[in-house]
Amino acid sequence: MAFQAKKLINDPNDVVTEFIEGLVETYPGLQYLDGFPQVKVVLRADVSGATYNKVAVISGGGSGHEPAHAGFVGEGMLTAAICGDVFASPSVDSILAGIRAVTGPMGALLIVKNYTGDRLNFGLAAEEAKSEGYKVEIVIVGDDCALPPPRGIAGRRGLAGTILVHKVAGAAAAAGLSLADVAAEARHASEMVGTMGVALTVCTLPGQVTSDRLGPGKMELGLGIHGEPGAAVADLQPVDVVVSHVLKQILSPETNYVPITRGNRVVLLINGLGATPAMELMIAAGKAVPRLQLEHGLAVDRVYTGSFMTSLDMAGFSISVMKADQAILQRLDAATKAPHWPVGVDGNRPAAKIPVPMPPCRSTKSDESLSRPQLLNEQGCILEVAIEAAANSVINLKDWLNEWDSKAGDGDCGSTMFRGATAILEDMKKFYPLNDPPETVNEIGSSIRRAMGGTSGIIYDIFCKAAYAQLKGNTKTVVTAKQWKDALEASIAAVSKYGGAIAGYRTMLDALIPALTVLQERLDAEDDPVTAFVLSSEAALAGAESTKHMQAQAGRSSYISGEILASVPDPGAMAAASWYRAAALAVKDKCMAS
Amino acid sequence: MAFQAKKLINDPNDVVTEFIEGLVETYPGLQYLDGFPQVKVVLRADVSGATYNKVAVISGGGSGHEPAHAGFVGEGMLTAAICGDVFASPSVDSILAGIRAVTGPMGALLIVKNYTGDRLNFGLAAEEAKSEGYKVEIVIVGDDCALPPPRGIAGRRGLAGTILVHKVAGAAAAAGLSLADVAAEARHASEMVGTMGVALTVCTLPGQVTSDRLGPGKMELGLGIHGEPGAAVADLQPVDVVVSHVLKQILSPETNYVPITRGNRVVLLINGLGATPAMELMIAAGKAVPRLQLEHGLAVDRVYTGSFMTSLDMAGFSISVMKADQAILQRLDAATKAPHWPVGVDGNRPAAKIPVPMPPCRSTKSDESLSRPQLLNEQGCILEVAIEAAANSVINLKDWLNEWDSKAGDGDCGSTMFRGATAILEDMKKFYPLNDPPETVNEIGSSIRRAMGGTSGIIYDIFCKAAYAQLKGNTKTVVTAKQWKDALEASIAAVSKYGGAIAGYRTMLDALIPALTVLQERLDAEDDPVTAFVLSSEAALAGAESTKHMQAQAGRSSYISGEILASVPDPGAMAAASWYRAAALAVKDKCMAS
Repeated sequence: MAFQAKKLINDPNDVVTEFIEGLVETYPGLQYLDGFPQVKVVLRADVSGATYNKVAVISGGGSGHEPAHAGFVGEGMLTAAICGDVFASPSVDSILAGIRAVTGPMGALLIVKNYTGDRLNFGLAAEEAKSEGYKVEIVIVGDDCALPPPRGIAGRRGLAGTILVHKVAGAAAAAGLSLADVAAEARHASEMVGTMGVALTVCTLPGQVTSDRLGPGKMELGLGIHGEPGAAVADLQPVDVVVSHVLKQILSPETNYVPITRGNRVVLLINGLGATPAMELMIAAGKAVPRLQLEHGLAVDRVYTGSFMTSLDMAGFSISVMKADQAILQRLDAATKAPHWPVGVDGNRPAAKIPVPMPPCRSTKSDESLSRPQLLNEQGCILEVAIEAAANSVINLKDWLNEWDSKAGDGDCGSTMFRGATAILEDMKKFYPLNDPPETVNEIGSSIRRAMGGTSGIIYDIFCKAAYAQLKGNTKTVVTAKQWKDALEASIAAVSKYGGAIAGYRTMLDALIPALTVLQERLDAEDDPVTAFVLSSEAALAGAESTKHMQAQAGRSSYISGEILASVPDPGAMAAASWYRAAALAVKDKCMAS
Repeated sequence: MAFQAKKLINDPNDVVTEFIEGLVETYPGLQYLDGFPQVKVVLRADVSGATYNKVAVISGGGSGHEPAHAGFVGEGMLTAAICGDVFASPSVDSILAGIRAVTGPMGALLIVKNYTGDRLNFGLAAEEAKSEGYKVEIVIVGDDCALPPPRGIAGRRGLAGTILVHKVAGAAAAAGLSLADVAAEARHASEMVGTMGVALTVCTLPGQVTSDRLGPGKMELGLGIHGEPGAAVADLQPVDVVVSHVLKQILSPETNYVPITRGNRVVLLINGLGATPAMELMIAAGKAVPRLQLEHGLAVDRVYTGSFMTSLDMAGFSISVMKADQAILQRLDAATKAPHWPVGVDGNRPAAKIPVPMPPCRSTKSDESLSRPQLLNEQGCILEVAIEAAANSVINLKDWLNEWDSKAGDGDCGSTMFRGATAILEDMKKFYPLNDPPETVNEIGSSIRRAMGGTSGIIYDIFCKAAYAQLKGNTKTVVTAKQWKDALEASIAAVSKYGGAIAGYRTMLDALIPALTVLQERLDAEDDPVTAFVLSSEAALAGAESTKHMQAQAGRSSYISGEILASVPDPGAMAAASWYRAAALAVKDKCMAS
């Protein structure tokens, strides 16, 4: 099925000039020649041929390979990039204008990918420039390893390995070398690198329809960078298999395309073809390195992973392997201001990457110290009955909570809360340090997190951790009513902060916030603490009931109509009110009994 | 049509851990915690929490947004990135491990995109870390401007603007600021930025099928970064229109999402969503800048264009606009080693980018000086008859050339050569400076380039330019036979170098190389020059005839069987032999007549 591809462009005829305009808006260090639409040359804003005292390094070719080549213009890499129309060689006039603009007395090196159009146009421009008195050299790069050695003129295509040649030449020029020496380094680099591509889709030229050459489940091996068919079509394989195949082809001793043998040092370039996510490129890089090391016996000195020489919107990648020596590594590591040369890739790599050990928990508390005390003190007894009552109230409310939740949510609120409450009762018997209220609150959080899961589990864990942090910082042995109030306040603040709800959002906070308000009032009024808690728990229940009249603001229930919601209270608010009230009443009973 | 998406991965469950392995292979400065598969934390290789004396800046969230967040780990930006599974929040244990690994006495700032899962998990981890004694602050970023102000908990989503918040916070931390101050700067930055996305395709999770939600010719406005539906679906528009719409939405005074008004300074971030070519992103950047300046009255201080916060393989982009002040610009410009923060984007931009004027041709020759001399000297007369005879021979051979070419090529060799020969005859009458052979040869090249076009036009132009450069450097007034021979040699070398052919490739060189060989021999044997040229032209003709027995090595004819080719000579070789022989014979006649 061929279809008109969707692209975020204006007129397909203007894509290259508009690309250049955006490029120079993005990078203050880049400029372009005033020759649109025929002459499309990007150059360093700080270089003028009249005064430039280093060898100019110029490349270019058809557009559609962005960031190549314009994105590699900058001190230490290219001095200018000549942009043709999409997949079309630039004209001689364009190239000549670029040469004139940046070439000083040291001369210019033209780095050209091996395509007939580019060779001829750059060649003629070079000859014209020479006849104007410029010193010009050309290096032609043909790094493709996909096809058997060609018989004729065409030769091996220039692919992403060209980027490494740009870098070597650019660094040599920046170091002040002569034209002959820069050209010699570039030529040497071009002979050391081999590349092969793999694609999952073909690319689509702006304004054209997409070819259906590659069907579902197929990939193409050894393709070029202009959508030209590859050497073979195969069933899609895991990327590990693809990487292995491509590396074997590049390093094949039969074609002997690159002079790399066991024990050599290499650099690796994984190049996205345009529409390949960074994730997939990195996965390929992660698989290629150990294969080069273990299967091919090579030391991998540098890895470059990214999109360097693309084919418009093609999905796929190419792999380039370059034989490295100290001179080449020095050029590759040299600083450059070219925007798209990768950052953070220089310097020696460890032979193997050993992950960092997991850091220990900084808490002083050891798990063994946790156990239920043999003898509970008065506070411990009260805490025990409160927790027991609270948990049982939630257990008893399970079916109601599920039913209310089924009207507005996924109907499992009761079951989820039940799991948490059951775990609390079990864990309390085993190891809650009930004579230490802060640590007990902390353990309740851990029980909940372990047993409940989901959003409500995390929210209740946050609730407990915040209370714990508050209590721990301010409590000696006996927790005062005021301190419990402060803990409730801290818990509400944390739940609101991370959960995002405030009063009136139809959540547990609509029970707890009124409870806190009343508790604060009663304690300020110097009521008896137990009475204050009981009154506060009545406010919690009233608050929870009032959620019937609230519109949901979060989660699934925010999509439910107010009419349906009006028939039920929020189950989260009812659960909170229920356990809070049960705890308050249990404490009251316990205190009256003693 | 839903289909299984093609991805270059191995097991879909391993994509995040394998991504991280490739990432740390690529960047020597990055490391990861030894906690796979549950704990997926990327951190600076040079930072250990025990000794780190600056505020740690930590971010993270679901994976699938690469390079975010792991690609922004590095000095001056993030200290660690916590990676969840694809589009799933990381677990509390992961986040806690990350905090423990890099947080020293100065504390840690967690920068969290506003999604419920991330808020809760990072929130709980923060509370747990605090209870372990770490100083922790959280800043939540919600920069989405696509939807009307939300009523509820969800709030505005965190999108690519988060990257700018990372940079501001990272630079503030690197400057040695306290946790409170770093958090304040991050919070301020988060309030200054607004973002909106546009997509052409939906993304596909590894191992899943692709949704067909977006049909041909449609785009989605205001979408999130997890494939969640956008605010509206619309017909695809030119990107200029899309950019205009998005900027209006972000800067809407009604929603008032960002406090940006006319006269303000801003920075612009164009973010690719994963499968958008760099070309299209730059086009959008180039359109957004003038719109911000002219329509919205804003000064654009920085432009960041690239793929920062993607959605796997989604095609589309988001635009972020951030209000800038000197403090923010200083943080954005500060150096960082984070691999994916863009390079070459810092520093002040000119108010408008004026392209560089086209450089002049360095040639001393002015066009006006070119004219046919009133009186031809002896050499000029000979040159004239030679050119005339050569051009006429090609004109006469037109139909034969076309016929031979139709057997192996596109059948237009004769017509193309005819155009060149006709132009030469016309131009010679008007302005060839025939008394100056080098300049005349140069002009022949220009006539050919103007009139012929195509590959053969360029090759003949190269032929003439190379001869011109050779003659010009070594000739006074009269050109000797030896100098003509040297010029032919230079021409052949240039054509071979740029065209890629050698002897036996069935090209014009199969006429010219034998001609050169014989010419050289005869001149070395001190033959009379005219005789030497005539003998040489016989060799040219014999060489051209011999192409019948050659297999083509270039262009279309390389796909044609030897049997068909054996019936015809190469038309390019025949044309070359023909004009060369005609010229030699005309010179002989002229010299014998005088």
